[in-house]
Amino acid sequence: MSTTSARPSIAFVGLGRMGANMARRLHERGYDITAVHDRDETVAVALAAELNAVFSPTLAGVTAAADIIFTVVTDDRAQRAIFAATGDSLLTGATGKTFVNCATLSPAVHVELEAAANQVGAHTLEACMASSIPQARAGTLYLMCGGGREVFDRLQPVLTELSDQGKLLRYIGPAGTAGQVKALVNMVMNINTAGLAEGLGLGTSLGLDPKMLLEVFAQTGAASRVVQTDGEDMVNRDHACFFSAAHAAKDSGIAVALAETHGLTLPLATATRDQYQRMVALGLGEQDKSAIAELTFPGRAGTT
Amino acid sequence: MSTTSARPSIAFVGLGRMGANMARRLHERGYDITAVHDRDETVAVALAAELNAVFSPTLAGVTAAADIIFTVVTDDRAQRAIFAATGDSLLTGATGKTFVNCATLSPAVHVELEAAANQVGAHTLEACMASSIPQARAGTLYLMCGGGREVFDRLQPVLTELSDQGKLLRYIGPAGTAGQVKALVNMVMNINTAGLAEGLGLGTSLGLDPKMLLEVFAQTGAASRVVQTDGEDMVNRDHACFFSAAHAAKDSGIAVALAETHGLTLPLATATRDQYQRMVALGLGEQDKSAIAELTFPGRAGTT
Repeated sequence: MSTTSARPSIAFVGLGRMGANMARRLHERGYDITAVHDRDETVAVALAAELNAVFSPTLAGVTAAADIIFTVVTDDRAQRAIFAATGDSLLTGATGKTFVNCATLSPAVHVELEAAANQVGAHTLEACMASSIPQARAGTLYLMCGGGREVFDRLQPVLTELSDQGKLLRYIGPAGTAGQVKALVNMVMNINTAGLAEGLGLGTSLGLDPKMLLEVFAQTGAASRVVQTDGEDMVNRDHACFFSAAHAAKDSGIAVALAETHGLTLPLATATRDQYQRMVALGLGEQDKSAIAELTFPGRAGTT
Repeated sequence: MSTTSARPSIAFVGLGRMGANMARRLHERGYDITAVHDRDETVAVALAAELNAVFSPTLAGVTAAADIIFTVVTDDRAQRAIFAATGDSLLTGATGKTFVNCATLSPAVHVELEAAANQVGAHTLEACMASSIPQARAGTLYLMCGGGREVFDRLQPVLTELSDQGKLLRYIGPAGTAGQVKALVNMVMNINTAGLAEGLGLGTSLGLDPKMLLEVFAQTGAASRVVQTDGEDMVNRDHACFFSAAHAAKDSGIAVALAETHGLTLPLATATRDQYQRMVALGLGEQDKSAIAELTFPGRAGTT
């Protein structure tokens, strides 16, 4: 950063609904968004105009324009591409710069990026998000961070503006550990989701009103976040996709594989993975994870 | 009840920690507890003195002494015994009386008791509790009721005093349905518990701090009531029994059997039942349900 008192300048790579909303939030909180970049130039030009930023057609141009560069891309492949060792890359001229990588990646990729950045005198932080689009816009993301503690400490003022004034900001440990925690969150969430679908499905079979059941579940030992987020959708068969069944199958599968390498048997995570894989096999993979209720409600497709 | 304006008089049969605390609560709220009865005479005599009630050595005496008789016994067998067709029975002289049966029973038993009571001009209500001892004392029980709607309506003033001024009082449907709902609550709760134990166990294997994981779970899509009630106990191996693993195995087994009779396959409930049965086989059945973590944490008994 140029001085200790001035606010750092900020750039964004990856302007999907998460990245664009995080940029809007920081702009609103008084940060200079100096440059933006996306594979979709139209999107990038429009956001640049909105935030009084420059659209940089090159990645090296993004790095040159800011102290802190947020990357909010889709997966390991996209993340590696923007940090390529050759050709146009964020690592060009990156000495003294800090990259905040918000994609959900394999832990090993975070470790690899950190080493590559350090080699050119730059820093990285893994910032794993366990929230969705409205929270990005409102600056109330649950942000789990992995990397050097000193990098985290230095970025804290800007990350605070994204995480409900820091109330939802967590330092987890070295690079890659935040992604491990997120994998565990998703594994447990998927189990709770699959279990809720079974409870509502059996209740419906018994002739009980599933909306009454949801109300009772919410106030008893059966209560969980997914009762709130997925319960009504299961009953109403509203499976517009927020988090796909295929994604759930992949995440639970990663957790089961990790457990196997550590000699642990996890029957619930395994049963959940199998249910989500069954959804994929039935052609329901691109429906929301709540569509697992199609396998447990009487008379629905997956039960016949 | 003798008049429309006077408060009904109340008696209790079954003075375990739930029943005794419910009696204390109603006494405190101005109801006359006229008689109490328990198989353990010492317990009954002491509570009678405390509440200015009469200890009735016979069941017929309890019925004679009150308008409303709460029964808080352990199981189907005990419940049937106090409503026996011959010998000392609550049904003797029961015309006009109302019985509130709070034990967790097979749904069929509630239906059978209702019919037997109606035959002698008495009424019954199933009042299924989804809370524990402190809530009984404080009058903040989650109370799910099954039986005639008019019986429920008539009892509402007194039930209100037990259920956080009625905020936690629910009419579910005919006799037996409240117990069905409770079985579903326990089935889903057990799944969430087994899933949490897997998430914490795998996290510990990965070298993550399980207390940090609990904090993250509580604030993300993995959040559930059991994270609050069982999470720390799993980490600290504090398995003093509130709800035994054997009880969990039984409840999940009932749910799986019900599902089978309705042609539904519930892999999560089945895996959960199997885990709790494994605990029983390992001699852990009388530990708390949180002890399922003994099967999923690295280096603990059930994983070796």
